[in-house]
Amino acid sequence: MGGEVITLTHGAGGTLMDKLIKTTILPSFSLRKALDGIGLDALDDGASLKLSEYEVIASLDSHTVSPLFFPGGDIGRLAIAGTVNDVAMMGGKPVAILDAIVVEEGFAVDDLKRVIGSMDETAREVPVAIIGGDVKVMQKGNIDQLVIATCGIGLTRRGTIVSDDGARPGDKVILSGTVGDHGIALMAEREGLKFETALESDINPVWDVVEAALKVGGITAMKDPTRGGVASALNEIASKSGVSIWIDEERMPIRDSVRAASEMLGLDPLEVTCEGKAIIVVRKDKAEGVLEAIRRTKNGREAVVVGEVRSDHPRRVLLRTVVGGTRIIQKPVGEPIPRVC
Amino acid sequence: MGGEVITLTHGAGGTLMDKLIKTTILPSFSLRKALDGIGLDALDDGASLKLSEYEVIASLDSHTVSPLFFPGGDIGRLAIAGTVNDVAMMGGKPVAILDAIVVEEGFAVDDLKRVIGSMDETAREVPVAIIGGDVKVMQKGNIDQLVIATCGIGLTRRGTIVSDDGARPGDKVILSGTVGDHGIALMAEREGLKFETALESDINPVWDVVEAALKVGGITAMKDPTRGGVASALNEIASKSGVSIWIDEERMPIRDSVRAASEMLGLDPLEVTCEGKAIIVVRKDKAEGVLEAIRRTKNGREAVVVGEVRSDHPRRVLLRTVVGGTRIIQKPVGEPIPRVC
Repeated sequence: MGGEVITLTHGAGGTLMDKLIKTTILPSFSLRKALDGIGLDALDDGASLKLSEYEVIASLDSHTVSPLFFPGGDIGRLAIAGTVNDVAMMGGKPVAILDAIVVEEGFAVDDLKRVIGSMDETAREVPVAIIGGDVKVMQKGNIDQLVIATCGIGLTRRGTIVSDDGARPGDKVILSGTVGDHGIALMAEREGLKFETALESDINPVWDVVEAALKVGGITAMKDPTRGGVASALNEIASKSGVSIWIDEERMPIRDSVRAASEMLGLDPLEVTCEGKAIIVVRKDKAEGVLEAIRRTKNGREAVVVGEVRSDHPRRVLLRTVVGGTRIIQKPVGEPIPRVC
Repeated sequence: MGGEVITLTHGAGGTLMDKLIKTTILPSFSLRKALDGIGLDALDDGASLKLSEYEVIASLDSHTVSPLFFPGGDIGRLAIAGTVNDVAMMGGKPVAILDAIVVEEGFAVDDLKRVIGSMDETAREVPVAIIGGDVKVMQKGNIDQLVIATCGIGLTRRGTIVSDDGARPGDKVILSGTVGDHGIALMAEREGLKFETALESDINPVWDVVEAALKVGGITAMKDPTRGGVASALNEIASKSGVSIWIDEERMPIRDSVRAASEMLGLDPLEVTCEGKAIIVVRKDKAEGVLEAIRRTKNGREAVVVGEVRSDHPRRVLLRTVVGGTRIIQKPVGEPIPRVC
């Protein structure tokens, strides 16, 4: 153990990060739950507190994406959408955000304004208020430009919170749109790759999708496929719910440009971060209604049923390939792209 | 404007930071308040949401202190205490914390464990639960070791929140203990100064002090003197409350070692960060009772009445000097010590 150091993969949303959190961080904290809510042990996208007839949901993330500005978005849009989505995945209506900006000495005030303008624009789309914040400056060379932490606060009626461990055999698995867009767009930008069709990040706050789904009802689990992509998110749902998830490869929505770039970059689009997508697991009898409702939302127009939940092979994610075979989708060791979110 | 860049002073809790926030950040956000609570415009230590019979208080800060380990504390203790104190200053009982850790590739896992152990120890002192978190890793050289953002969530009964704008003429100003300890200890450590009496940071979560004060009642304003020290905090209370605050120099509690080191370093202890102190403004008729109650707490044993609130010279902080003169205490342009919190 002595001499072990943190690697990039420790922060990459995969099995190595799980190990760090489960062996080093989680057991070190004595008090991990408050007011009978969802606490640290759940390892979910956020946590919660029960208060009168409400459950208050809170989620905190630091955003370290590089470059700060990229096709389809920037760190400001990411900071708001990422946090809104984490709150939404627990079934919470996002009501407020706090932000903590750490900026490098010498950073252009105009660029800071551009980032803040983007945060505001994204917050208005939801809409969610930005009610508090903090600014710290580090000496030149002590931090690469800008890191933004955002805490999102959401509300649900007590007893209606959605976790990522409620999937049951027979449920259908809905994906709210195409996968891999954010990670591949970011990587292509970094590598200077050009394609006929522009690659763009999919950063969007998807509360509209979740709200529509919740109104129909029957939702048993939700998760947004961020670090580690759909592969990581589906494995978490399968593992925590004690079920298997079977996905049809031919139904998996992947843009042609993303597929082409993925091949060129040697990346699997299923293992790559999305920033405007939701995986929604729903009872079979409600699946059609939820799908229709989602497709009527701005951020869920391309939603599809990609698979189903079963009781065989518990804790596994299995892909029925186009050619008729079956492949196990493992949780990646870590997101292959550093500083993706 | 074009070409203006962020300087260290922009993040140093003084007038330059005020300007950045008031001219660049605040007006850029359209939605700044939620559920009829305290929003961004209040520029207070935190924000709030009204919910049933409660007011939920939330505060978010990034902690960038350097070095990570210093006499009397470390970044873990700072992250928990700093956030607990911000929640407490609004009259909130701290109930939960979320943390977002950004760590540099190559950082020793054992040092991370030490920081987390310190977070846990500090949280247990309050006690407050750590209910959620996030870990990101940045490439070597992209961040100096470790930054921790913590979001604190606190509760008060609706209508009992305390802000920093409620001070009224006649009120007494209580300081819960000595000033300047954290900033001076950190600066002395960096400069390699040695003194006969060890200089130690005063990092402590002061919910015990606040809880005792609130039980007696009559509290009109609270603030913890962090970046920019007592000078900045008193000026904020005076300015927001539209009153003057008169302080007696001879009653101001400053350790001899802090005073000596301050002189050697050319720093004013009143302008330097404290991390375990509260400024509590209280109605005159309750002042004696509050002082006695605070002195019975672990973190308020050295509490004193340092001054009073008046209506003349509104928005000014005035110091009656030991030799009988009067000196205006201005809000500093910024905390003189970089990466102090």
